[in-house]
Amino acid sequence: MTQTVNAADALAIDTDLVERILVGFLRDEVRKVGFERVVVGLSGGVDSALTAALAQRALGAENVTPIIMPYRTSSPESEADARRVADSLGLNPVVVDISPQVDAYFERHPDGDRGRRGNKMARERMAILYDMSEAHKALVAGTSNKTELLLGYGTIYGDMASALNPLGDLYKTQVWTLARHMGLPSEVIEKAPSADLWEGQSDEQELGFQYTVVDVLLYYLVDERRTRAELRSMGFDDAFIDDIGARVRDSQYKRRPPLIAKLSVRTIDREFRYPRDWGR
Amino acid sequence: MTQTVNAADALAIDTDLVERILVGFLRDEVRKVGFERVVVGLSGGVDSALTAALAQRALGAENVTPIIMPYRTSSPESEADARRVADSLGLNPVVVDISPQVDAYFERHPDGDRGRRGNKMARERMAILYDMSEAHKALVAGTSNKTELLLGYGTIYGDMASALNPLGDLYKTQVWTLARHMGLPSEVIEKAPSADLWEGQSDEQELGFQYTVVDVLLYYLVDERRTRAELRSMGFDDAFIDDIGARVRDSQYKRRPPLIAKLSVRTIDREFRYPRDWGR
Repeated sequence: MTQTVNAADALAIDTDLVERILVGFLRDEVRKVGFERVVVGLSGGVDSALTAALAQRALGAENVTPIIMPYRTSSPESEADARRVADSLGLNPVVVDISPQVDAYFERHPDGDRGRRGNKMARERMAILYDMSEAHKALVAGTSNKTELLLGYGTIYGDMASALNPLGDLYKTQVWTLARHMGLPSEVIEKAPSADLWEGQSDEQELGFQYTVVDVLLYYLVDERRTRAELRSMGFDDAFIDDIGARVRDSQYKRRPPLIAKLSVRTIDREFRYPRDWGR
Repeated sequence: MTQTVNAADALAIDTDLVERILVGFLRDEVRKVGFERVVVGLSGGVDSALTAALAQRALGAENVTPIIMPYRTSSPESEADARRVADSLGLNPVVVDISPQVDAYFERHPDGDRGRRGNKMARERMAILYDMSEAHKALVAGTSNKTELLLGYGTIYGDMASALNPLGDLYKTQVWTLARHMGLPSEVIEKAPSADLWEGQSDEQELGFQYTVVDVLLYYLVDERRTRAELRSMGFDDAFIDDIGARVRDSQYKRRPPLIAKLSVRTIDREFRYPRDWGR
């Protein structure tokens, strides 16, 4: 598809202001619920690097524990990049190999294809982050950006799960912008995005489009609620608009709590719906 | 504490109607998203037995796969009761031992106390249910009742996670009533409720109160929004009201998606908030 929109305009952010808001968010929301510390899963990618950097500014390096969780087939470069990020921020990483647990399961379920293996790995990492959060009296800081969340490009109750997420309202393109602004290692910012769940995995190959393109469409579709005629006039073709619209709608369940059968006058997540910090 | 309220009145349900609503809920919500089948984790307790029974009526026995997931220290009676439930409903259970995965992790993290072990086990079971749901092209049916959900008496991203939950608007007392109505095995209905995460665990001992008492308080507090003066006049003392109120408020985070830092005009779970089945 061709698109003639100027992505720089749509996705421009005031990096100083955004950094200040997100640092304040982490500081306030962690302390409000009685904590001082966070754990963050460091994959070697830019999203988790940015979350770790924001948390380090918000809480101090001594209060941020990065957890690196390689699988035996993970790229060694991912772990090296994760260590590079931790070093650059003055953080002491904990390395937990997920291979024994994941292999113990799939040895007895050899029919598991790479999709099932990838989801099980993402959930094992979530479970380890939550276990480490108990051990360190810390909250789990999330690393899912707005692009991934809207496309449902992540594992429900896996990498999409956290206590609080500073990146959930930033598109991938904006994550890159803020990561550059905060001086994160260029290797981490410039490499091709990948969940590294299997060898050679590439986000953009798997998705079938580029982040710089889809981010602009998502911005106009979701944030500005533009009409189809307007999106067309920007150069987006119908097939792409339909595909992205369907992805956003079909993944809505990943962004909501479990659906509860309604019986009473005050059902959880229906009438009984407060913010997470209700009562604080 | 003493309480003089007639629990039978507050928690009375029309069992025929409730059964019909919940069977219809499972049938409609599973099929609406293109599925025919569910998996359900069968613990040997009454909640999961009731979910399995409702699913069997809704979808037929051939479309319900119970997954029994013992740990090596789980009570053998739990597995026997789970099998009894499956037999009584004509379901073929799949048994998946969680011990190898859980032990592989805690062998290298021997500082894990029983709380951390219990949470890790609950999340391993969730991950297996989701893996089985992919293998069986099924949805994960939840088993958390309203009492557990309101008290936060469960593991976030563990037993509290599911695709759809028929029991989330039924208090524990009402689960017992409906289970009796549906003719579930009496052994399962009459035994003391337990998560069976360690030997001798008992819900009511751990919580410090009885379900039949707390359910009445929760009903008047949450569903009827009664004042403190009214609750006192029913016989609930201040300390108990305060304790339960604090439990409900402090566990709100377990009933909500991750908290996202707000930056845009349309933030996920704020302005961008649709039902799970939006667009269907």
